[in-house]
Amino acid sequence: MNIVRPSTIAGVMELLPEDQLVFDKMKNIIEETYKKYQFLPIDTPVIEKNEILFAKGGGETEKQIYEIASDTRDMSLRFDLTVPLARYVAEHFSDLNFPFKRYHIGKVYRGERNQKGRYREFYQCDIDIIGHNKLAIENDAIPPRVIYEIFQKLDTPDVSFRINNRKLLNGFFESLGIDDTTEVLRLIDKKDKMGLENMKEDLVKLLDEKRAEKIASFIEAANSNQETLEKFAGLVENDLYEEGLKELGTVYKYMIKLGIPDKNIKLDPSITRGLDYYTGTVYETFINGYEKIGSVSSGGRYEKLADNFTKQALPGVGMSIGLTRLFYQLKEIGLVDKKEENLTEILIIPMSEEENFYAIDILNILHDKGKNADIYLEGGKLKKKFSYADKIGVKYAYIIGGEERENKTITVRNMKTGEQESIDFDSLDRVCK
Amino acid sequence: MNIVRPSTIAGVMELLPEDQLVFDKMKNIIEETYKKYQFLPIDTPVIEKNEILFAKGGGETEKQIYEIASDTRDMSLRFDLTVPLARYVAEHFSDLNFPFKRYHIGKVYRGERNQKGRYREFYQCDIDIIGHNKLAIENDAIPPRVIYEIFQKLDTPDVSFRINNRKLLNGFFESLGIDDTTEVLRLIDKKDKMGLENMKEDLVKLLDEKRAEKIASFIEAANSNQETLEKFAGLVENDLYEEGLKELGTVYKYMIKLGIPDKNIKLDPSITRGLDYYTGTVYETFINGYEKIGSVSSGGRYEKLADNFTKQALPGVGMSIGLTRLFYQLKEIGLVDKKEENLTEILIIPMSEEENFYAIDILNILHDKGKNADIYLEGGKLKKKFSYADKIGVKYAYIIGGEERENKTITVRNMKTGEQESIDFDSLDRVCK
Repeated sequence: MNIVRPSTIAGVMELLPEDQLVFDKMKNIIEETYKKYQFLPIDTPVIEKNEILFAKGGGETEKQIYEIASDTRDMSLRFDLTVPLARYVAEHFSDLNFPFKRYHIGKVYRGERNQKGRYREFYQCDIDIIGHNKLAIENDAIPPRVIYEIFQKLDTPDVSFRINNRKLLNGFFESLGIDDTTEVLRLIDKKDKMGLENMKEDLVKLLDEKRAEKIASFIEAANSNQETLEKFAGLVENDLYEEGLKELGTVYKYMIKLGIPDKNIKLDPSITRGLDYYTGTVYETFINGYEKIGSVSSGGRYEKLADNFTKQALPGVGMSIGLTRLFYQLKEIGLVDKKEENLTEILIIPMSEEENFYAIDILNILHDKGKNADIYLEGGKLKKKFSYADKIGVKYAYIIGGEERENKTITVRNMKTGEQESIDFDSLDRVCK
Repeated sequence: MNIVRPSTIAGVMELLPEDQLVFDKMKNIIEETYKKYQFLPIDTPVIEKNEILFAKGGGETEKQIYEIASDTRDMSLRFDLTVPLARYVAEHFSDLNFPFKRYHIGKVYRGERNQKGRYREFYQCDIDIIGHNKLAIENDAIPPRVIYEIFQKLDTPDVSFRINNRKLLNGFFESLGIDDTTEVLRLIDKKDKMGLENMKEDLVKLLDEKRAEKIASFIEAANSNQETLEKFAGLVENDLYEEGLKELGTVYKYMIKLGIPDKNIKLDPSITRGLDYYTGTVYETFINGYEKIGSVSSGGRYEKLADNFTKQALPGVGMSIGLTRLFYQLKEIGLVDKKEENLTEILIIPMSEEENFYAIDILNILHDKGKNADIYLEGGKLKKKFSYADKIGVKYAYIIGGEERENKTITVRNMKTGEQESIDFDSLDRVCK
């Protein structure tokens, strides 16, 4: 028979079971925490109509969309969970209750160039709160609260949030008479990469010395969040600016009230998050001590979720974790240890077929007690059976020979130390506790 | 703005959150039970290379494959989880321990014609046990044990298994001198649809009166499993037949030993399960009283999992649940009731912004206690707030006005009866128990 070399397509993450257990545990923590904060699950098809995916038009992502080959060429794979959310909320509008809090954990697809740490298929884990016509600003404190708790449960160092407000930024630019903010925002976004001085030089070229100076001074955070807020108060007279400042203050206050420590929040006027989608609050999230891997969860407030699909005004706020990339990064920096994860704790090993039934009696009891137990039903020498127990990493082997079967006992072998002891079948109940 | 009508592609299942909660609960039961029996998770890319998906060649499914549009046209969406399993085991062969027990829950894609109850995207939930070179026959009793438990937990009526063995069938045909069994198997497979007499007539046309009679009598199960086994014993002299009979007897015996009641097993020689993949045990599963919806979980034993991808001999045994179709069917016959599922139990309603902080104190305590609680932060009249609580189906509304805040109390409203009582904030601990 002609043998095809078995391999996945390039640019995907495929894990061995021991890593998959760790990955799934992380995914479960995310899901359980989303549910704890009463976000409801949705699960949309991976394939969407092109008219949905391309409704917005333009943008880099569009070039990366995987289209389905067919005569009509009218379907593609989703590239994020936001467009499907917009389509879902617009389609099911009259069946949903607003504010609509949903989470969505699913795979998305992008025809990325093949590159380490970039994936063509990856999990996104999104939460969003969608209002009808309006959505109270206090909601903006909830997504970071949820993300904060997730990373505590993931057992990484604590995360810190950098938050800002686009109205504050845009109002400030308005007060300086800057109409087209695209280029200015792009430069601010690059501040950390290029350094403050280089950014200022580029700003001077774009605008003038005086305004470049003002912007550079504006985007520097003060020593404390309180000082930052004080620094901003009354700095310029502009309605949008004042609205943004008030919102930022409220979100900050509610984040604290919801239990995020002040030291894990930084009001940072240099955070911009892309150019057009977000209209108010914006967040980035960094693992303390590992800031260099970049933001591990980002998001913000937007005014128009679905205006390509409905005339309803649907403002919202949300954050997202790119789980596939996060898992890769946590492994790279040594914050994920697969050794800890193993499913089977006890392997029951009958010496021969004759012991199978007695071994199954034991298995049934262990399963009733909620133990992670399994039975090895293959023939062969004891050495081969131990070797299997060893390789799958069980703690105990329960060895069942003819003697054990006749005397209703079990020889329990500690696979780490090699120590063995005999226990009675009737005492299994107690042993399990 | 130009509005695109929001809609999914045809032939997919997209649920509202209340149904999604039920669906997810079913999916969790399946996953937890698979894990209880020590099957390990794998998660493979939805996109595979065409050379992998088409390696086997031929067959109806191939026409339904969704290909990715690209210059090279070398990738498609998987149409089942078996080909990816074969590729996975062959690719990671040296990193896996055999017997390798894996479960896989994921979406698969088929370009089905649009038809009620047929889906283009659907969840498969597979378990398989893969051996290296050989795999003990006793393993064949495990998948039905797992499936049996899942349906008990799903709260449907009990399921019954119809099991057979392909060696028994093929050995019997050998003894009758029938070389090409394809057509005979096809007719047997249709027995229930066309009736025994019609099947026999067609068999006569294909073979002759005598052999048609023998086959018809052979595939009739006896009154009890014991009688069926007795009826088969020594019926014909043929090695393959005898091997199949011994296997069938062993699998039956171990299914009983593992806790499946005899009345939920039917040794049924008319079960054939497709034409070439399965080589030994075959199973179908029916919900008692709802046999007409067809088998809800099928599978069997195969000799060659991955011989398109490796020279290693990899026999295996497995079963699969088509969850999307099962959910649809259970809803149709009224065995799924979405009303029971609701996430939020308590909704905290501050009367005005002034009460928000006190309300969050309450929320934090409820969350610490593991309660499904949420807070309503939108402004507006109390009536609108109650209406939201009502629509999302909470049991209790915790109403917080100025008085409650000052006196550190909570007005608890039973949303079903309309009854209200006042409790102290300090007694929240006790109330939660």
